[in-house]
Amino acid sequence: MRFTSEQHLDGGVLERGFTLGEIPGILWTPASASPSEPVPLVLLGHPPLGLRRMHPRLVARARRCAADGFAAATIELPGSGDRPRWAALEQARADLRRAMEAGEPVGEEIVDALVLPLVDKSVPEWRAALDALLALPGIGGPVGYSGGVISIGVRLAVVEPRIVAAGLFAGSLVPRSVFEEARRVTIPLHVLLQWDDEGNDRQASLDLFDAFGSREKTLHANMGGHTGVPRFAGEDAAGFFARHLRQPQAGPGGR
Amino acid sequence: MRFTSEQHLDGGVLERGFTLGEIPGILWTPASASPSEPVPLVLLGHPPLGLRRMHPRLVARARRCAADGFAAATIELPGSGDRPRWAALEQARADLRRAMEAGEPVGEEIVDALVLPLVDKSVPEWRAALDALLALPGIGGPVGYSGGVISIGVRLAVVEPRIVAAGLFAGSLVPRSVFEEARRVTIPLHVLLQWDDEGNDRQASLDLFDAFGSREKTLHANMGGHTGVPRFAGEDAAGFFARHLRQPQAGPGGR
Repeated sequence: MRFTSEQHLDGGVLERGFTLGEIPGILWTPASASPSEPVPLVLLGHPPLGLRRMHPRLVARARRCAADGFAAATIELPGSGDRPRWAALEQARADLRRAMEAGEPVGEEIVDALVLPLVDKSVPEWRAALDALLALPGIGGPVGYSGGVISIGVRLAVVEPRIVAAGLFAGSLVPRSVFEEARRVTIPLHVLLQWDDEGNDRQASLDLFDAFGSREKTLHANMGGHTGVPRFAGEDAAGFFARHLRQPQAGPGGR
Repeated sequence: MRFTSEQHLDGGVLERGFTLGEIPGILWTPASASPSEPVPLVLLGHPPLGLRRMHPRLVARARRCAADGFAAATIELPGSGDRPRWAALEQARADLRRAMEAGEPVGEEIVDALVLPLVDKSVPEWRAALDALLALPGIGGPVGYSGGVISIGVRLAVVEPRIVAAGLFAGSLVPRSVFEEARRVTIPLHVLLQWDDEGNDRQASLDLFDAFGSREKTLHANMGGHTGVPRFAGEDAAGFFARHLRQPQAGPGGR
């Protein structure tokens, strides 16, 4: 991991760009953080639109983390932003666009081709980023995962034991196999659903919430469309992470 | 309205029993409340099990209101607690019990007979109580309604303009006609659903949430069974009332 830039944002947040091999990423830490008192970490997921485009929204989420005493970090997804084009992903996106423009139902093959390779490739990258981030002085865990492509969040929740709580956004196409994976999730979950999100299959989102194996799982459904998540929903999500990351470890009652 | 008892609870809450005609009720006020600075009011709904039995849970909710600077009040439901038996209600309850013990589906007639007379009789009583409560020095509004029989909450939200926000519990039998009434609700709503509540029709609860006409409506679904609402769900509901009752009036954007 190599830091490539450093910027002090107002409000006492240090933003540092980094690369992990070929993968660009960003780390935000509370300016008050010190090596002697390591802080928890929230991994900020995002849709595959490129870090540059997502930056303003990521900064807002990172600021909230910093205000709660947490570090936050993200990495670029494969085939997005400044990373090399990925022919298979471009093809799957074109197929999705074509089906949607033709008003056709989006078939399972298209969803699988769009999402599963992204999950398979990105999840090991997030885990490698986690290795590097937790090796930094001042970052200690526990670790939460928040937002982004929900299928990536599900896979990470299943395979990465260092992630103790996840906040997921139910607003993307979900392959059939991810519903099966969801049953194996046991960490506390906070799932956000935009009730009137026309681009999202509401029933599929409710089915996915139902499938999660977690003993503590919460669904927050709000109005406002896909991008209109109300401000108070962000507050509630922050409360979820505060509950689960402020203790050194979630007890068995919370799992 | 006549006060019948007065008790200082620890934590700075004054609990006063009252009667409004033949109807017993309870008012809780922050000990710090003064006539010169009237506080908002939350009406505490409850299931028709009698105020005496519900008292511990009502006190817990009232304490939370007082901590937020709100008064809280409740009245006994018709046919419950110390109020005269109500033959029609007893009959409907017996019919419900019989159907459930026989493992039969609970028909619409049973639900209507159980709930609609209760709504018709109790809603004017809650409104009369509101008249009396808002006439007291130190209680000013705005007014919220919280919990209890959801069909009563829906009717109150439609007919009582002084109620500016409602927190509803999706856990009881809902007559078909209430789904139609729900479309006419426009105030901000916070709806709590216990996802794994075996005695509740989850799909009906989701349909009712969908039916509400409010531009701001939030569904919080949690695990824990009918009576196992997690502590943090109470915190979130308190946050909802704090947002809507702390300002003198909810702006048009919030409606």
